[in-house]
Amino acid sequence: MGEASGRLEFWYEFSSTYSYIAAMRIERLAETAGVTIDWKPFLLGPIFASQGWNTSPFNIYPAKGRYMVREMERLAEQHDVPFRMPAVFPQNSLQAARLALVGAEAGWIIPFTKAVYLAAFRDGLDVSNRAVLEDVLRGLNLDPAPLFDRIAGPDIKEQLRDQTDLAQESGIFGAPSFMVGEELFWGNDRLEQALEMARKG
Amino acid sequence: MGEASGRLEFWYEFSSTYSYIAAMRIERLAETAGVTIDWKPFLLGPIFASQGWNTSPFNIYPAKGRYMVREMERLAEQHDVPFRMPAVFPQNSLQAARLALVGAEAGWIIPFTKAVYLAAFRDGLDVSNRAVLEDVLRGLNLDPAPLFDRIAGPDIKEQLRDQTDLAQESGIFGAPSFMVGEELFWGNDRLEQALEMARKG
Repeated sequence: MGEASGRLEFWYEFSSTYSYIAAMRIERLAETAGVTIDWKPFLLGPIFASQGWNTSPFNIYPAKGRYMVREMERLAEQHDVPFRMPAVFPQNSLQAARLALVGAEAGWIIPFTKAVYLAAFRDGLDVSNRAVLEDVLRGLNLDPAPLFDRIAGPDIKEQLRDQTDLAQESGIFGAPSFMVGEELFWGNDRLEQALEMARKG
Repeated sequence: MGEASGRLEFWYEFSSTYSYIAAMRIERLAETAGVTIDWKPFLLGPIFASQGWNTSPFNIYPAKGRYMVREMERLAEQHDVPFRMPAVFPQNSLQAARLALVGAEAGWIIPFTKAVYLAAFRDGLDVSNRAVLEDVLRGLNLDPAPLFDRIAGPDIKEQLRDQTDLAQESGIFGAPSFMVGEELFWGNDRLEQALEMARKG
């Protein structure tokens, strides 16, 4: 638990099951490795769209989707993280990602991110629903109204577009992804390897 | 290195880079775990075709393809396995897979499989080329002519079709895949986890 010797960017999408598992694991692993994490919410939708997909590949390719659900059950048990598939999948994560960017400025992005993930993948709620996000914010002692006003303005919208463009330019094509400098790692299962590289960094 | 306590099916495609890495690792890991491996060559082409793909997803999705090549370099270093991308990718693996089925009967499927992979991913050769496969066979002190006669007949062709159908029916959508009973694991990076389940029986 020495001083942080390196940095790692954690690129995540609120509708991604594997991103959820990574979000629940990353703080403890990063602390042990002495690595500082930059939390980077982005949208997979535009990246998938540029690949010709109009929904999650887990819906487009049913065998892959069935496997993902089974693997989530195994991962949840392995990492002692609660999991259920929400009725709506994938969920529109636009509002959640915009709020997270406000949280990045204000210092509450990490608890907000985890609370949104738990709402979706522990409680099965639809986090594209404003009322669900309001409850999440209130649970963090934040007043929802001014935050929703804020994300209705142009600056946060543009920030999220820029962040998503940056993801795509960096070669990111799925979530979670981890960047250590220009080195890309894709998938929750690559988290340890990415941290090891950041630590040595 | 005790008696084998369980079995694991190793489903592989000769044109798959990640299958190559798994093939080079699996014997030692299986011996340590005391698990018996059933080597199961199959064709991804028909499975991909049923998903609407006419080539490797690494070609269809260039960001994914670039990432795969970079990850192969990292995996090759990590596991001390030689690697280069062959000029032709993916390679037509039909003849290699049919020969491997003859090898399964005759007891040389494992050295044949590894030799084909090394020809492709160490030496950069095109293993859809009959002369390359003949060299591989001669390297194992096998006479190529009767083996090529054998795979021209209907029984091996049908065996490979059946094996590929069985893969698809088992939920397999990529390679390598590992089956322990009805439990499916996808990807070279799941090999250890699959062996652990097989070991526990």
